[in-house]
Amino acid sequence: MVMERHFERLFHPRSVAIVGASNQPGKWGFLLPMNIIGGGYRGKVYMVNPGERRVLGFAAYPSLADVPEPVDLAVVAIPARKVPEVVRQAAEKGVRNVLVVSSNFSEVGGEGAELERKVAEMADRAGITIVGPNTMGIYSSTANLLCIGAPVRPLPGKVGFVSQSGNLGVQMLTWGRRRGLGFSRFVGCGNSANTDVTDYLAYLGDDPHTEVILLYVEGVKDGRRFLEVASSITPRKPVIILKTGKGEQGKKAVLSHSGALAGPYELFRGAMRQAGIIEAETTEEMLDLAMAFSVLPLPSGERVAVLTLGGGWGVVATDALEREGLKLAELPTDLIQELDPHLPVFWSRKNPVDLVGNARRSSHFLALEALTRCDEVDLLVAMGVMFGANYWLEDVLSTTVRPFLRMLRRGPGALVRYQLSIARGARRSVGKSGKSSREGSGGVNLLEAWRWSDRAMTRKILGLMKSMGKPIIPVAVNESEFSTSLRFRRSGLFTAMTPERAARVAGHLVRYAHFLRESSGRERQDGKTGK
Amino acid sequence: MVMERHFERLFHPRSVAIVGASNQPGKWGFLLPMNIIGGGYRGKVYMVNPGERRVLGFAAYPSLADVPEPVDLAVVAIPARKVPEVVRQAAEKGVRNVLVVSSNFSEVGGEGAELERKVAEMADRAGITIVGPNTMGIYSSTANLLCIGAPVRPLPGKVGFVSQSGNLGVQMLTWGRRRGLGFSRFVGCGNSANTDVTDYLAYLGDDPHTEVILLYVEGVKDGRRFLEVASSITPRKPVIILKTGKGEQGKKAVLSHSGALAGPYELFRGAMRQAGIIEAETTEEMLDLAMAFSVLPLPSGERVAVLTLGGGWGVVATDALEREGLKLAELPTDLIQELDPHLPVFWSRKNPVDLVGNARRSSHFLALEALTRCDEVDLLVAMGVMFGANYWLEDVLSTTVRPFLRMLRRGPGALVRYQLSIARGARRSVGKSGKSSREGSGGVNLLEAWRWSDRAMTRKILGLMKSMGKPIIPVAVNESEFSTSLRFRRSGLFTAMTPERAARVAGHLVRYAHFLRESSGRERQDGKTGK
Repeated sequence: MVMERHFERLFHPRSVAIVGASNQPGKWGFLLPMNIIGGGYRGKVYMVNPGERRVLGFAAYPSLADVPEPVDLAVVAIPARKVPEVVRQAAEKGVRNVLVVSSNFSEVGGEGAELERKVAEMADRAGITIVGPNTMGIYSSTANLLCIGAPVRPLPGKVGFVSQSGNLGVQMLTWGRRRGLGFSRFVGCGNSANTDVTDYLAYLGDDPHTEVILLYVEGVKDGRRFLEVASSITPRKPVIILKTGKGEQGKKAVLSHSGALAGPYELFRGAMRQAGIIEAETTEEMLDLAMAFSVLPLPSGERVAVLTLGGGWGVVATDALEREGLKLAELPTDLIQELDPHLPVFWSRKNPVDLVGNARRSSHFLALEALTRCDEVDLLVAMGVMFGANYWLEDVLSTTVRPFLRMLRRGPGALVRYQLSIARGARRSVGKSGKSSREGSGGVNLLEAWRWSDRAMTRKILGLMKSMGKPIIPVAVNESEFSTSLRFRRSGLFTAMTPERAARVAGHLVRYAHFLRESSGRERQDGKTGK
Repeated sequence: MVMERHFERLFHPRSVAIVGASNQPGKWGFLLPMNIIGGGYRGKVYMVNPGERRVLGFAAYPSLADVPEPVDLAVVAIPARKVPEVVRQAAEKGVRNVLVVSSNFSEVGGEGAELERKVAEMADRAGITIVGPNTMGIYSSTANLLCIGAPVRPLPGKVGFVSQSGNLGVQMLTWGRRRGLGFSRFVGCGNSANTDVTDYLAYLGDDPHTEVILLYVEGVKDGRRFLEVASSITPRKPVIILKTGKGEQGKKAVLSHSGALAGPYELFRGAMRQAGIIEAETTEEMLDLAMAFSVLPLPSGERVAVLTLGGGWGVVATDALEREGLKLAELPTDLIQELDPHLPVFWSRKNPVDLVGNARRSSHFLALEALTRCDEVDLLVAMGVMFGANYWLEDVLSTTVRPFLRMLRRGPGALVRYQLSIARGARRSVGKSGKSSREGSGGVNLLEAWRWSDRAMTRKILGLMKSMGKPIIPVAVNESEFSTSLRFRRSGLFTAMTPERAARVAGHLVRYAHFLRESSGRERQDGKTGK
């Protein structure tokens, strides 16, 4: 029997009742209404607490049954043993969604597990969706509903996130915010009494506000159903998963956390791949992938071009791409001839394209454009093109200002001579702006200074991606996370923090694109043969 | 024939001559003296440029030979074909260290390789150490010598770093600075004409200012000698390496970068392990390891205790530790009984110790202390104990302030009622401070607010590490890199950015500690049998 769900009302409730609402700072019953009010939820809020006349200034009702109007979502933060009575009242009142924050259920085994079964049975009979128990709560951007029992402020966006760990989930929301990643929905599954990750996944699959789905999964009760539901979504939306409980110690840790049974991982892993699910290796990678899949076009093959300002980074990237099973694109002769006049004589003349620290910014733009337009290239990893504010503010400024200060100390004569020298050099640099010294480093062309900004490069990359439909992943080793995040948030350009992480993202983009081509191929074939 | 080296003069030169010094911004010949002057170098600086009367305000000499006084280090930034003449003059003048920034040597093959051989032969005959060619330069903290041709400002410290890629090396210096990691020396090997990574490694092994050695290696000419030298150092100092050029494409990329031949990686890898060399997987991990090995005591076994505020992170950490081959410590019954009264009834009662979001800070301190003192535990990974300024400033503040603002909009009546409610709750919270509600979340004890600061926790962790001699790795998923770095720089507490990265560090600590025990065991045995 499949229960009728009212997920639309869960994520867009017209009214919320908080059972166990409290005035006492730090308690779940305090944080939840604080977040709901502070988050800007516009529906009605009812506080339920038999021991208080008012909670946070709102009138408090002795019980859920006493709330005079209909309730779309009841949030429960009272000791476990009192929860069945609330579910009974919810059933009577016609509440279809009950979110149980309380712990002390199946995750502790014994009596707790018994209690959870009882609650689930009552809920099943009444057609109530139980979120939890032992959940941190939910978030829904389109309803401004921040129903989470922890200090957190998710950024609204298009990633739907279901997590079998509330604490991990909530911290990922904050981490996501710091990286500029916004969320449409979040659900902490808790113990999944009668509603589990697969149910939420199915909802997010059809949710028009969710474009990328993110899952943290320790174990699923019905693996077959999970894979079926996921398979029906992956041809339309990327589904990214972090699966834990892989080893023996890990499985035990899962059991005492969410109480889920983690099966043999290798088997599940193979099935996930077949279903087109994108598997992250680490928590950090979860966010990398969610960000990348939110904004990047998919590559039409596996041939990668690597652009770098220094050979070492090219080698690091090549190693990492090889580990992902990707190929370095073979660059055609005419491309090399096209670039040749603009680069120092000792440039690499092959992929990775090593600009050997060339300080003519125009050649960075030129190489990037030529590689993106090249038919032999499906995807680009571009290192040394982003610099970040701290590069200019700290490194370049200190290189410029510190000698000045030292000269100042040597006396006015030295300072004046120093300034005259630089003025002469700068004049000469502008005079030579047309030609580049092919034997040496050439120096900076001051007339193209504006091109050195990350803003100019961002526009260039976004333009190329749009016109050519190919993913470009800039890498910014020396940029602060803050600048990278700000750029992602403002302009939607994903920047990898290291070439290794760029390669991981590239691998997943290529594999998912391949999966999509295969599955649409199958569909067309199925259509032809009338299946 | 082993050449006599004058590395002490390379890293502490009394005078530096810059051949090719330039007034033109962006050129190597401009950046190098700017950095040398700006870095606060106190020895003598001579500018050499036949086309200028003054460079950066200093008198310019037409050639190295024209410099009237002795030169300890000659820095060369002129086209490759002119370099042999400079080396000839250096030999004549008795300069023992020549740093060649110029490119266009063996990395381009053919004539360039021929030129490099010629330079190396001349240098060998004259007993000159050639740094490079094709190097970014060197840094020496104790001489304030920032002889690097790129905008960079390394933090002084105790990590000695040799890199076969200058660009990568320099960016790692900046990245290190951002993470609070300081360096004693840096050398970009360049093409290693007559001096390679092994020579520098040997010097750093005996350098009293270097406590941890970091290497970026694409390939070594004499693998056996490299391993011998490394083996003689690893029992005294940790040697951390990032080895690239692992796969086929990677090897090709190496060839066109540093011109080194990367041999079969798997063989080399095994030999490195035997030599006690610590191998980083990624550039990011290089810094993690350099930081961790700079400050952490070594564990006496492989049994790890995991402390977490939420079960999910515990599972993630367990998976990652298992991947490293580490064991979760079995917690003795008396430890569990000791913690039991201070934690909610539904706490895990095993390792990982899940504090289940407990908001009594005293119990975090208590659990940390009990686990560190426990004889069954060799190493700790502690999640959820660091919060970072942005947690308080952004998350907690917004949870507190935003509802206030919403209430303000509802009118003065609602605001006053809201404030009265919270005042009542806070009073009650303080009144109950002695006992903790074991069924619920208990709420925050306002009397222990000071303990929630990262500063208090830092002191606690540093104190425990010192008294027990065990490594504790706090994890700060939701802290900005900035706060974590500041703490490392100020107090020397290493914080991992994710549990996965903590596990990698833990794995390396355990393996290196094991290597040290084995090698000192061998030594003792050798001593006994009179070998």
